[in-house]
Amino acid sequence: MKMVHVTHNSGEYPVLIGERIIEHSSTLQIIQTLIAGPQVFILTDHTVAQHYLSHIQKILRHLQCHHLLLPEGDQAKTITTFTDIMDVCIAKQLHRDMTFVALGGGAVGDITGFTAACYQRGVRWINFPTTLLAQVDASIGGKTAINHHRCKNMIGAFHPPSAVVIDIATLRTLPDREFRAGIAEIIKIALILDADFFAWLEQHMPAMLARDSTAVLFAIQKACELKRTIVMQDEREHNVRALLNLGHTFAHAMEASSEFEGWLHGEAVALGIVLAARLSHQLGMLDALSLTRIHTLISHHHLLRPLPDLFSPKELRSCMNLDKKIKGNQHRLILLCAIGQGVIHTQTSAEMMCDLLNQNVLQLM
Amino acid sequence: MKMVHVTHNSGEYPVLIGERIIEHSSTLQIIQTLIAGPQVFILTDHTVAQHYLSHIQKILRHLQCHHLLLPEGDQAKTITTFTDIMDVCIAKQLHRDMTFVALGGGAVGDITGFTAACYQRGVRWINFPTTLLAQVDASIGGKTAINHHRCKNMIGAFHPPSAVVIDIATLRTLPDREFRAGIAEIIKIALILDADFFAWLEQHMPAMLARDSTAVLFAIQKACELKRTIVMQDEREHNVRALLNLGHTFAHAMEASSEFEGWLHGEAVALGIVLAARLSHQLGMLDALSLTRIHTLISHHHLLRPLPDLFSPKELRSCMNLDKKIKGNQHRLILLCAIGQGVIHTQTSAEMMCDLLNQNVLQLM
Repeated sequence: MKMVHVTHNSGEYPVLIGERIIEHSSTLQIIQTLIAGPQVFILTDHTVAQHYLSHIQKILRHLQCHHLLLPEGDQAKTITTFTDIMDVCIAKQLHRDMTFVALGGGAVGDITGFTAACYQRGVRWINFPTTLLAQVDASIGGKTAINHHRCKNMIGAFHPPSAVVIDIATLRTLPDREFRAGIAEIIKIALILDADFFAWLEQHMPAMLARDSTAVLFAIQKACELKRTIVMQDEREHNVRALLNLGHTFAHAMEASSEFEGWLHGEAVALGIVLAARLSHQLGMLDALSLTRIHTLISHHHLLRPLPDLFSPKELRSCMNLDKKIKGNQHRLILLCAIGQGVIHTQTSAEMMCDLLNQNVLQLM
Repeated sequence: MKMVHVTHNSGEYPVLIGERIIEHSSTLQIIQTLIAGPQVFILTDHTVAQHYLSHIQKILRHLQCHHLLLPEGDQAKTITTFTDIMDVCIAKQLHRDMTFVALGGGAVGDITGFTAACYQRGVRWINFPTTLLAQVDASIGGKTAINHHRCKNMIGAFHPPSAVVIDIATLRTLPDREFRAGIAEIIKIALILDADFFAWLEQHMPAMLARDSTAVLFAIQKACELKRTIVMQDEREHNVRALLNLGHTFAHAMEASSEFEGWLHGEAVALGIVLAARLSHQLGMLDALSLTRIHTLISHHHLLRPLPDLFSPKELRSCMNLDKKIKGNQHRLILLCAIGQGVIHTQTSAEMMCDLLNQNVLQLM
């Protein structure tokens, strides 16, 4: 079992990474020291519960253990679900020393973390991410959120978990489409920070897609370590953490304009990365060879989905005007000046950005 | 103008205290340095807006200034109001560098602070408390919250404002009942921390109730300074901050069991203080003379309201089982071992506490 330690504003937490570690005695030992009171509330969804809920209940059987099945995917990240969870907490008389447990993908982690941030002004939570995307991205950095129906992640909090347990055995039940979506976030972090890791991904993508344990473990650990270095420098995204949003301005707008249906987050990010790379090249920042390498890695391994017919540039622009990276009415777009080197670009106006994006999107359709 | 500086986990903020300081040029200067972006969103209610909204709009006229009128009192502290505010933020395309302004009593401050904590994972807010209760209590310490319909302040966050502006001129329009309710929180802080201040209150209560500026300014400043020493020792209420809940276990249960209607928070606190003092005496912790002094100060100046006919011990017990101070299923009650000396009492079982409270409440009816 590997362990990555993340320190933040008000403490630190361990990220445990390994295969079949959910039921491992050393995992249990670490978790037991982090759960303060006798009450635990597991949030998961129907699909994940079928496979793993009994495992978690078994290791926590010495505690008062409640659970709730949330709607699948981003449908869990709503005010309605948030209120439903609060109702159960109050009906079950859960106290401030209780612990939430998130068991599922990024959406389950996001709503669980946000609820933990708000219940009684903040209680503990432990995250068991079960999708590749949640394991490499959402699990580190303390961001939690729910969606406003018009805009992704607009309501949220920074509320780091007390521990993250990444068991790659849970990936065995993950549908191929979701696995590929997770790879987009791994490529993203390599692109902004680590050229060698990007080269490794070019070489090992077939092994990754075959879910070879050694390759998958290496990639997850590498992605977690890279993300950790960024969030420890800038927990609240005042500067360098914004780099992690490569491909995300467009991805979030795309997801919101399709009302969070039909697209997996990682699929929108894959498209966003290709668009950001093309823009970087058009603005003279990124050389043609690098652009080709990026495009090849993403498209060759079928990480891009076809764009929907009903793509609306107007709706997209409205969503992009709510991007959380906007400062003083100025858009901040994450671009690349090389593979492994992301930059925060502030010289683009909203109009110019939309025009460039629309033009590129049309070419991709 | 007096200034109290409060430092917290991630920064500090000034509390400006004075008479007619809302429009004072030095207030404006301080506020201008704290507002980061060009967008401001003022949250207030109809009553307060009539008197003071134009003052605030005038000093912020160089910014893009929006406002929303919230329901009066605790009716503002709901998930529905929270969602309504978020809808406006998104419709007006307010960015992460915007600033919320709370203009009103404790409820307006609580919902504004909580919304500021959650919008885009946390934006700035400035608090202009306009009731005595909000000025002496809610304005310091960073606690923000909304109510669950079954329990007060169950959903919230620690999210300190960037500044607090306490203008006692706003108290001139405050109804007598609300003014008296505020005095309960001043008595509370004297009781747990400062015997001299309690003696001062005994002597100056007539001047306070006549709203003599000098007396009111002194009391507010003293209360703010005392509260500041507590929250700076223990921001997240792991230990000593719990003392500030003297009278509150019962007050919150009382308010929730009456569904937040009919009782002002300070009125419930006044009753809670008397009950806590009686319990302290019954348990042999507080001498009879001190109990008499406490009872006299509160009842002589008509700070107690008659109890409602439909008082339900069962509902009360259910609400008290959700008290945020409960740790490991054990109630923690704040009691007094002397005037000026609050203690955290953990030896009382839930049943014993309820019995003692019911018995005392019946005597007060």
